[in-house]
Amino acid sequence: MKLTIYGIARSRAIRNLWMAEELGLAYQHVQTVYGPEGSRKPDFLKLNPNGRVPAADVDGVILWESLAINLHLAKKVGGSLSPKDVDEDGLMTMWSMWAVTEVETPALAVLTHGSLKSEAERDNALLAKSIEALKAPLAVLEAHLAAHSGHLVGGRFTVADLNVAACVFYLRLSNLLADKPAITAWYTGAMERPAAKKAFALRGD
Amino acid sequence: MKLTIYGIARSRAIRNLWMAEELGLAYQHVQTVYGPEGSRKPDFLKLNPNGRVPAADVDGVILWESLAINLHLAKKVGGSLSPKDVDEDGLMTMWSMWAVTEVETPALAVLTHGSLKSEAERDNALLAKSIEALKAPLAVLEAHLAAHSGHLVGGRFTVADLNVAACVFYLRLSNLLADKPAITAWYTGAMERPAAKKAFALRGD
Repeated sequence: MKLTIYGIARSRAIRNLWMAEELGLAYQHVQTVYGPEGSRKPDFLKLNPNGRVPAADVDGVILWESLAINLHLAKKVGGSLSPKDVDEDGLMTMWSMWAVTEVETPALAVLTHGSLKSEAERDNALLAKSIEALKAPLAVLEAHLAAHSGHLVGGRFTVADLNVAACVFYLRLSNLLADKPAITAWYTGAMERPAAKKAFALRGD
Repeated sequence: MKLTIYGIARSRAIRNLWMAEELGLAYQHVQTVYGPEGSRKPDFLKLNPNGRVPAADVDGVILWESLAINLHLAKKVGGSLSPKDVDEDGLMTMWSMWAVTEVETPALAVLTHGSLKSEAERDNALLAKSIEALKAPLAVLEAHLAAHSGHLVGGRFTVADLNVAACVFYLRLSNLLADKPAITAWYTGAMERPAAKKAFALRGD
C-alpha cells in the first residue's frame, strides 16, 4: 500500500500514525501544521477542503476524518485489528461514531479548559458542562469493557479500541477515569502497545 | 433480513426508516420516544445503554448511532446505495463522519434556536455561532456536489448522500441554502425520492 499521512503528530493525525504503526505500514509523513502555514494553504485545501488535519492518501484515494481513515486502513489491510465480517464492521463503525458524538468534544474541552489553558483563560462553565456531558458515556464505556473482557468488539484489540482510546486520550490530565477501573486498564493497555509508543513518541512530549 | 428499528419517526430514527425504505426492507418499527417513557426505560437501556434513539436490531446485532446503522444496512444488503468496494466504503464512512463532526450539531442549533423555540427562549449567541460554523462545511459540500455531478460518492445516490442529507434536513427552515444551488438541487432530489417521501410521511408533519 502507498500511504501518505498529512498532519503533525500533535494533531488528530496521531490517530492515523498509531494505526499505521499497528498495521506495520510503511508511510510518508507530511508535517502539516494547523492554519495558514499548513492546513489552510491552497495546496492543502485541494487535499482536504475543510482545511483540517489529518488527511491521508491511501493508494490514491484522498480521505479526511481521522477515525474514518483508520476504519478504511483496517479494511484495506486486514488482520486482527480489522473487522472479520460485516457485523464486526458495523460495530466498529458504531463505536467510532459514538466516540465522536459522545466523547470527543467534551473530552477536548476538559483537556483545554481543565489543564492546557491558563486559569485566567479557562471557560469554567464549559468545563463543568463538559464534565457533566461525559458522565453518561464514560459509564457506558466502563460497563461495556467490564462486561466484554476489556475490549469493545470481538474480544480483542481492534480499530474500535484504537479510535475510542484516541479520544479518551484527551482525558489524560483529568481525574475523570479515577473511578473507572475497566476504562483505566483498557486505556493503559492500549497506550502501552509498541505501536502506540512508537507513534506517540513522534509528539515529542 | 430481520430488522427492528427503535425510535419515533420524529427522531434521528427517521434516517434509518428512510434507509430501510430505500433498501426495500420489511421491518418492525418500535415507537420509542425520548426520555423516561421511552429511551431511558430500563428495558431500552439494555438495547442502547446511552438512552438514545434510534437503536436497531439487524439480524440479532444491536446497533446505535443512526449513521452507522445506515452504513451497516447498506453493506448487509448491497445494491446501488452501498459501497461497491473498500474505497467507496472509506469515502461513504468519511462523509458520514464529516456530517457528524462538521454539520449536525450547528445545523440542529440553527433549527432549534432559529425556528422551533419561541423568540424568548432562543439562544441568539449560539445561533450566530452555529451559522458561522456552518459556512465552511456548506461551502465544501456545495463545491463537492458542483464538481461531482451532484452526488457525494461514485456518481450516484448512495448511503453517503442519505446520511449527509439527513443532517442538512435540520436546515430546512433556515435560509442558509439560498445561495447554494448545488446543495439545494441535491437535497431536493434526495427528499423527493419515493423512499424518502414514504419515511418522512411517518413524521406526520
